[in-house]
Amino acid sequence: MTVLAYAAPAADQPLGPLPITRREPGLHDVAIAIAWCGVCHSDLHTARNEWNNAIYPVVPGHEIVGHVTAVGAEVTKFKVGDTVGVGCMVDSCGHCGSCHDGLEQFCEEGMVQTYNSPTADAPGHTLGGYSQAIVVNEGFVLHVRHAPEQLAAVAPLLCAGITTWSPLRHWNVGPGKKVGIVGIGGLGHMGVKLARALGAHVLAFTTSPAKREEALALGAHEVVVSRNADEMAAQTGSLDFILDTVAASHNLDAFVTLLKRDGTLCLVGAPEHPHPSPTVFNLIFGRRSIAGSLIGGIAETQEMLDFCAEHGIVSEIETIAVQDINTAWDRMEKGDVRYRFVIDSSTFA
Amino acid sequence: MTVLAYAAPAADQPLGPLPITRREPGLHDVAIAIAWCGVCHSDLHTARNEWNNAIYPVVPGHEIVGHVTAVGAEVTKFKVGDTVGVGCMVDSCGHCGSCHDGLEQFCEEGMVQTYNSPTADAPGHTLGGYSQAIVVNEGFVLHVRHAPEQLAAVAPLLCAGITTWSPLRHWNVGPGKKVGIVGIGGLGHMGVKLARALGAHVLAFTTSPAKREEALALGAHEVVVSRNADEMAAQTGSLDFILDTVAASHNLDAFVTLLKRDGTLCLVGAPEHPHPSPTVFNLIFGRRSIAGSLIGGIAETQEMLDFCAEHGIVSEIETIAVQDINTAWDRMEKGDVRYRFVIDSSTFA
Repeated sequence: MTVLAYAAPAADQPLGPLPITRREPGLHDVAIAIAWCGVCHSDLHTARNEWNNAIYPVVPGHEIVGHVTAVGAEVTKFKVGDTVGVGCMVDSCGHCGSCHDGLEQFCEEGMVQTYNSPTADAPGHTLGGYSQAIVVNEGFVLHVRHAPEQLAAVAPLLCAGITTWSPLRHWNVGPGKKVGIVGIGGLGHMGVKLARALGAHVLAFTTSPAKREEALALGAHEVVVSRNADEMAAQTGSLDFILDTVAASHNLDAFVTLLKRDGTLCLVGAPEHPHPSPTVFNLIFGRRSIAGSLIGGIAETQEMLDFCAEHGIVSEIETIAVQDINTAWDRMEKGDVRYRFVIDSSTFA
Repeated sequence: MTVLAYAAPAADQPLGPLPITRREPGLHDVAIAIAWCGVCHSDLHTARNEWNNAIYPVVPGHEIVGHVTAVGAEVTKFKVGDTVGVGCMVDSCGHCGSCHDGLEQFCEEGMVQTYNSPTADAPGHTLGGYSQAIVVNEGFVLHVRHAPEQLAAVAPLLCAGITTWSPLRHWNVGPGKKVGIVGIGGLGHMGVKLARALGAHVLAFTTSPAKREEALALGAHEVVVSRNADEMAAQTGSLDFILDTVAASHNLDAFVTLLKRDGTLCLVGAPEHPHPSPTVFNLIFGRRSIAGSLIGGIAETQEMLDFCAEHGIVSEIETIAVQDINTAWDRMEKGDVRYRFVIDSSTFA
């Protein structure tokens, strides 16, 4: 099956249209007509080879929502017409300890990412959701139970949503916990919504006083401008958990010192240049931790989607035609998006 | 009561004899004739004001074993003649969350350390165990149930023992767990003994191939020379927990990458110069943590002492006369001790 995609032919080239082929659905495969695809920073990093691992052509996109158009003979979880999602992974080994534990993102043989991973399909590496259709093993397809009019805003849940949901759940964020979300962007705005819906007391940390009202509207109980030393000092030793979504190099000590005893600062962004080395003293006094977290497993992604459907949670988005993707990337680089671009895949036609 | 101590009169002066006064035992106090006092690096750091917080004269010493000579009218846990220990703390607020949880080392009003902390007693700051006697609230005195001939070697348990025991217990080290101990010195040699007795599979990490046989004799199942890249690479992703006792600046990534998913690298030493900034990527891939830990609470110190008595565990020591303390510090600085000096307090007389 040949479909249209948008692809980067090289690191220094803009995205442009490219016909690609999708495999015929195998016994366990689900064929999906893509309706919406969210635009993640990772898309841009990969296409421009900023992580030095790009395989061209790069067809980015791992925040996919669409409808099932065909299923393989042994598919049991999906039928034609179902509304479904696909996130950052399309396969894993299925038999290692992490796969067994439902944490396929840590597959010991390496997960197969939705784009830029080796695959048996042409052209030899996976091609993502900036395209009209995709074929995925049913084990990596999610049910989407939101209302039809919400589907565009569901797409970013598949990466930004699960990336914040997984650590919030793993570190038991809920009622009685005071939780910080650092950086109110694509990831952070989901972190605020999810932590609030989980019942925690939520502090949004932003460098930008202009985001104060927005953060409150997203669900934060309090907003702290992290450049304001007095506002920061007032929170010393008071937080159970802080989710830090900022990928740029910054001072981690400023947040570690806000943690209670046994608190954790969890990082979900890997900076291009290292953070200043965190002070060991702040970890020792208070038995605090600095941890990392990577997207989430398939079971918890389904859990997150169902929780969001039940609580009416979606991302804040701006929809674009696929032809506007290069402009959208330029705007995303400048932080000029509230809070996620989503490609309307009907514009391929 | 006036007793003899060894004190540093100033940062640049050697230790010398000094008469000091101890308070009369209050209602809840235990008076202790000190038999043995271990020699910890902290003693030297404080006496030389390397942490910029020394109050002179400094009488160091927080690895104290002795016998009860008097008890206050309301003391219930101890009687005259009991063999007892005192570690790094002699008091705390008693009513904050950490004190309530038995983690007095994290007292929100600040624990009262055994030396160099403000106190109502003369001369206004606490004076430690390099002395003939000490008077301590019974809440900070431990029962020592080892055999009499073991008491010198029990002394280091009060700091080196609990500093390694507390994180090993907090992170659930035991049967079925593969655990690393980094640095085979005063702390690390206790870490090896305790982790082994707790039932874990123990790897000792040392920069010194010469310590291989010693580490095996201490109880390590395997020894890894951390400067040997092949030996390190062979352990990638295999450890549940690593206790890092090295206070000097070093590469943490080399150990983080040896952790399994959800593993923790716990630091118990605070370096004078920062460690190279750990790579966030290694935390994100594997949901790993870097944490810190500080000595331990009173209840877990008693638990550790009882465990050690039951399992016949003591520290490896070299006893010295108090008059030899300056030479012992010089040797300790060079790492020339297997593995802890202990002052024989009878030599004061």
